[in-house]
Order: sequence, then structure tokens, then C-alpha cells
Amino acid sequence: MPRSGHTVSHRAGAIAATESLRLFWAFLQEIDYVGRRGESELLDFTFGDPREMSPAPYVAALHDAIVPRNESWFAYTLYEPEAQAAAAAGLRRLTGLPFAPEDMLLTTGGFAALSLGMKVVAEPGDEVLFSLPPWFCYEPIAIEAGLVPVKVRIDPETLGLDIEAIAAAITPRTRIVIVNSPNNPTGRIYEPELLMRLAAVLEEASTRNGRRIFILSDEPYNRIVFSGERFCTPAEFYAHTLIAYSYGKTLLAPGQRIGYLALPPALPEREALREAVQILQFAVGFAFPNAVMQHALPELETQSIDIARLERRRDMMVDALTGMGYQVHRPQGTFYLFPRSPLPDDAAFARSLAGRNVLVVPGAVFETPGFFRISLTATDEMCQQALPAFAAAIG
Amino acid sequence: MPRSGHTVSHRAGAIAATESLRLFWAFLQEIDYVGRRGESELLDFTFGDPREMSPAPYVAALHDAIVPRNESWFAYTLYEPEAQAAAAAGLRRLTGLPFAPEDMLLTTGGFAALSLGMKVVAEPGDEVLFSLPPWFCYEPIAIEAGLVPVKVRIDPETLGLDIEAIAAAITPRTRIVIVNSPNNPTGRIYEPELLMRLAAVLEEASTRNGRRIFILSDEPYNRIVFSGERFCTPAEFYAHTLIAYSYGKTLLAPGQRIGYLALPPALPEREALREAVQILQFAVGFAFPNAVMQHALPELETQSIDIARLERRRDMMVDALTGMGYQVHRPQGTFYLFPRSPLPDDAAFARSLAGRNVLVVPGAVFETPGFFRISLTATDEMCQQALPAFAAAIG
Repeated sequence: MPRSGHTVSHRAGAIAATESLRLFWAFLQEIDYVGRRGESELLDFTFGDPREMSPAPYVAALHDAIVPRNESWFAYTLYEPEAQAAAAAGLRRLTGLPFAPEDMLLTTGGFAALSLGMKVVAEPGDEVLFSLPPWFCYEPIAIEAGLVPVKVRIDPETLGLDIEAIAAAITPRTRIVIVNSPNNPTGRIYEPELLMRLAAVLEEASTRNGRRIFILSDEPYNRIVFSGERFCTPAEFYAHTLIAYSYGKTLLAPGQRIGYLALPPALPEREALREAVQILQFAVGFAFPNAVMQHALPELETQSIDIARLERRRDMMVDALTGMGYQVHRPQGTFYLFPRSPLPDDAAFARSLAGRNVLVVPGAVFETPGFFRISLTATDEMCQQALPAFAAAIG
Repeated sequence: MPRSGHTVSHRAGAIAATESLRLFWAFLQEIDYVGRRGESELLDFTFGDPREMSPAPYVAALHDAIVPRNESWFAYTLYEPEAQAAAAAGLRRLTGLPFAPEDMLLTTGGFAALSLGMKVVAEPGDEVLFSLPPWFCYEPIAIEAGLVPVKVRIDPETLGLDIEAIAAAITPRTRIVIVNSPNNPTGRIYEPELLMRLAAVLEEASTRNGRRIFILSDEPYNRIVFSGERFCTPAEFYAHTLIAYSYGKTLLAPGQRIGYLALPPALPEREALREAVQILQFAVGFAFPNAVMQHALPELETQSIDIARLERRRDMMVDALTGMGYQVHRPQGTFYLFPRSPLPDDAAFARSLAGRNVLVVPGAVFETPGFFRISLTATDEMCQQALPAFAAAIG
């Protein structure tokens, strides 16, 4: 008989063994997330998931999109031209850059856009550099793509990118630097001056290496920006930027799986990249969004969660937590707060809150112990109800 | 400046260079498929796409599934328990094997199920063996997964698997054998005796290699079976079988992207495989089906295209083509015919038909020159209208 113990491939094992997934999984088990998430008294501030019924216009857009207009309504759909045109118009409005419809490579959401962005320019063994705290899936996606993750820490004071640390971490194998602004979990928007400094570092390093370093700009929160703030895409300052976007945040419907990888107008060799991404989309498992979501996109592009309401919730929570003695930055965008943990052991702190029916994510899950994350997709009511628990936990 | 010409990764280039994709792309360009597909006089027999309006019950099922029942309706959705239960019940009914709901790993369709099936058991450098004519995407999916495709030809007389050829092609690096029954493009259903002989060969080779060889059973047509025929899954005869399924064929809505990788009840180490597939689904780009399609699945599991009508169309076309002098097998399942080309150059034959407004796929695209494929998802009217062109092309 064949020897046992080698059913699951080493490659799948290597993904499961990544630091961020391991910590993420361990946390979910520790608080019995799957078991508890249905409890009515639970106040769940963990993930960017909706906590109230979806708005009627969102449901109406889907409702309209399922009514077939022709025989091909549910046929194989790569990129629906109307969907590409709507996505390009939306990104043009946001950034001021003249994105072409054919450069909007529609995907099954942000995860796929990131994976495709890595695979289309990087070879196995190349390095992908990103900043801590990171989104939990950069590392698994990189490992699956055969890339080597290289991590640097953000500036702990400003929560901005640490440009010197990035410059020092670049090697001849560096192919991609991930930038995530507005940032999950810090809520920080990177200002033009910071992005220009990064661009200068990457331009110089590309020349030194004799090989281009790309920015992979992870921008699912680029429309969740609070008053007085302005989002700038790194593509404005660095031509070799690939933009990954998901509609799951702006519409707060992350289960519906539509997003894109966008090629900015100044990016060279866009035609070759378009063809290569499309072929990769077949080969990785037909990573094109489903037909209904593509039909709905022109309408969905006009919709958004209520940013003003989210901003009031941000202010209420930041003010209340600060009043209790928490140290917390006022985020410039996204729907997260990332306060310091009052206990040095953020996992113990999160456990103590969970004991009070309030779920948050400990900073250790983001490889940043001493902090914790609160998702403001919770309702205002949930926020109010949670305040006594937050007060008791720091008391 | 960085040296030019290395924007697109070699890995993406290697996928684009695969024989089957290259031939497939060349064929689409040769007949100007994208340009012509909207022409009203065109009779399109190329792909398994719908050619008439979707049935009302299908649209009603989607309509019902978009109405949110709770706050989490459009939230991140991995495997919806009701969807898994419905999928398991359906496969139990079809095969008689007691599939467990938790072993139905829902994916964004058949492409993803095949890719995940390869990645979860095979290491880069392992060999995956499949038979010609193949589905056009086995090779690109294998190359993207880092696997080495090994091709054998089916028995040209019986259209069955050539078990001796498979046995001879197995090496110490063989990890997966793909079986596609009912077969695209031949319409052949592999009988139990053939599958038992394959199982015996793989059992012996696994022992000889000291490493298990898996069957990856690609079964999207397992419910499109004509009267007097019976489908058997290889899982009935070989425990180490992974089943890939897509709802896109049974429902003739391939743009809606839902399917699964199923772990048969006799397969050892199912728990480890389940965990590894789920983690891979995150890392390859969140390859879970969208929330609406999962909510719709219990209803969609009960639906199917009209097989009796398809069978009458098969008989009409086989009889008519045979009467004209074409050599064509009567398919046991699927919605394809795979006749011999009356010209030795099947591409020239397909071009001549295209000149008569009838589009078919030349056998060369399936690495099987001298044949051509007709998709019977065309309507009865389209079939009738095309008969004069088929008659003229052989005249």
C-alpha cells in the first residue's frame, strides 16, 4: 500500500502554516466564533460584515439584474462591456486618472484581484513586501502564488508607511510592494508626500535591480473616506501600479464577490498584461464575477454605505473610548478602529471582552500585539450597548 | 532603467503557450467569434451556452434568493449549510453513495473545483494524466498549478478510455488521473467494467509507486444522460476519487458560477482534505460561490434542462447528419456531437461552415484533428436551419 500521511500536498500545508492564517484561525477557535455568532445578546465587532438588513436599493439592483434581457444573460461572461465601462467611470471620478474600460479586469472580488496581480508580474521565488499590521490574507495569497513574503512595520507614531524600512528591506528579488490605503486595520490614509517618497525609492531600486518593482495597491476602502480627508491612489505617483478593488466594502455585501484589477493609464505594456490576466483568470479557476453581478454593476457603482452615518459612529466611539482612557487614533477612512489594548496581552483583553459578549479582534492576529480592532459595521445600537463592557474592561 | 520585456511573468506566459489554449484562441480569432457572435443570421453551435431565454423557474429561484431573510444574507459566505445539504442529497440520489454535507466543498464552478482538486493533493512537478480529446482547460489549469500534463489518446473505435495506454503512461511522478464521463466532446459514458479496470491499474501503480494516485473525476454532465444509459462515478470503484461538479451545464447557466469539489464517503483523510481545500479557497482568491447562488442552491438542485427534448434533438441531428453521409456516434450523454470531418483538414471544414453562417469547433482544438464538435444547446430551429449548410459542406 502507498505510504500514509501524504494525502494533503505540502503546498496546501504551507499555506495553512502561514503566521497570519494560523493566528486568525486560533483566535476564531478561542472565542468559539462559529458557535457563538448566532447568539442574540452577542455584540460582534470582528469582521467587516453587515449587521443590519441590506438597503432596499441594493436588493433592487440585484432584482433588476436577474431579469434576463436576452438569451445570453446567464451565459459564460468574461468582462461585460457595460460593467467595465461603469467601473472605469467610477475610478476616473475618484482618482482623476483616465482609466480605460478595457483595463478594468473584473474579478470575483479583492482576494482574486490581489492573487492575479501577484501572479501576472511575479515569478515563484520573487519577494512581495508588505507592512505590518497587514490584512490577514496577504501572506496566504503570496505563499499560494509561490512568492516570498517580506514584512516591515509601519511607523508606530504616525501609522504611516515606514519608507526607510521599506527601502532597507528591498532586495534584488523584490518584485511587488503592497500598499493598503485607506488602511485596514489602522484607518490611515497615506498622504501624497508619503506616496511620492515611496515612488522615488521604488524607481531607484528598480534601476539598481535592473528589474521593475511594482506597487500592488489594495484599495477596497478607497471610497470610505471621512470628511476633510482625501484619498490618493499610488498610481498617481508611480506608473507601475496595479490596483486591486472589491465592491464588498463600499456596498457592505462581501458575500457577493465582485471586484477588479485595474491597469492605470500610464502603466506600460497594458495590452500584454490584459491578455495575461485574462488567461490567468481561466487557469486559476474562472475568476470572473458571476453574470448577475456584472449586469448589476452599472447600478451598484452608484451606491455606497452611508459614509456620514459611519463617520458619526466613528466619532461617537472614538470620543467614548478616549473618555474611558483608551488610546485610539481617529481613523481617516475604512470602518475600523485600532485602539491600544489596555492589557499588554491583547488576546487576554479580547477574551475578557468576549466574556462580556463583545467580540473584537486582538492585534496579535495582525502581527501587532498590544492593539485590538473594532469593526464599525456594527450598528449604532450595538455600539451603545457595548460601551459598558468597554468601560468595565479598562476599569 | 529596468530592462524591458519582462513585465508579464514567465508563469503567465507558460499558461498562454499551452497547446489547448493556443489552438482555442487561434480558432476564435480565425472565425472572428467575438465580432460575429451578435449577428442575427448566425447559427452558433460552438459552446455550451444557452441559445434561448432562461426558463422561468430558474429566474424565480434567483428572484427568491436575493430577498434577504436576515442581516447576514450578503455577508462573507464560505459554505452555506443548506446549500451543502442540498448538494449532498443530490449527489446521493444520483450515485447511491452516502455523501456527507460537510464533504461538499462549494466552489465558484467547475474550473475552480478542478484547480483545487489538483492543488490539494499534488505538488509542483507532479504529473497529471488525461485523455485526448480533452476539455480545453485541463492543461492551463494543470500548468498554473505547477503540474506536468501527460496525455494519452482514447480508444478511437469505442471512444472509451484506453486503459493500456493509461497504464503505460504512469510514472513514479503520476499523482492524478482525470476522468471525464459523460465525456466532452465525445458524449461517451464510461461503463463500470472500464472504470473497474482503471481502478485496478491505479491501485497497482499506487502500490508500486509507494504513493497514492488520485482520480479527479470531472462530472459536470453527470445528469445529462439519455434514455437507456446509466452514469457511474469512478468513486464507486476507487476510493481515492475527488469529484468536480458544475451546475452550469445541468442548469445551462454557465455564467452563474457555482459548483463543488466532493469528497466521497470512502475517501480516507477527508477531514484533513476539507481543511486544506477551504484554506486553498481563501488563498487562490476566495473561490467560494457568491451568497445569492448559495441561497438559491436548494431550489436549483431540483432543476434541470429538459433532457427528453435534448435527446430528441440529438436523434434528429444524428439521423440527419448520418443520412447526409457524416460519420457520427450517437452520444450517451452531454450536449455535444463529435462527428468525423468530411475533409481531412477539420479547420478548413469549420471555416467552410462558418462561411455558411454555421459555427462549429474543429477537432484540432481538442488535439483531435479530423473531427468537429457541435453543441446541441442550439435550439431545434437553429438545428433545422443549419441542415442545408451541413448538407452542402459534405456535398
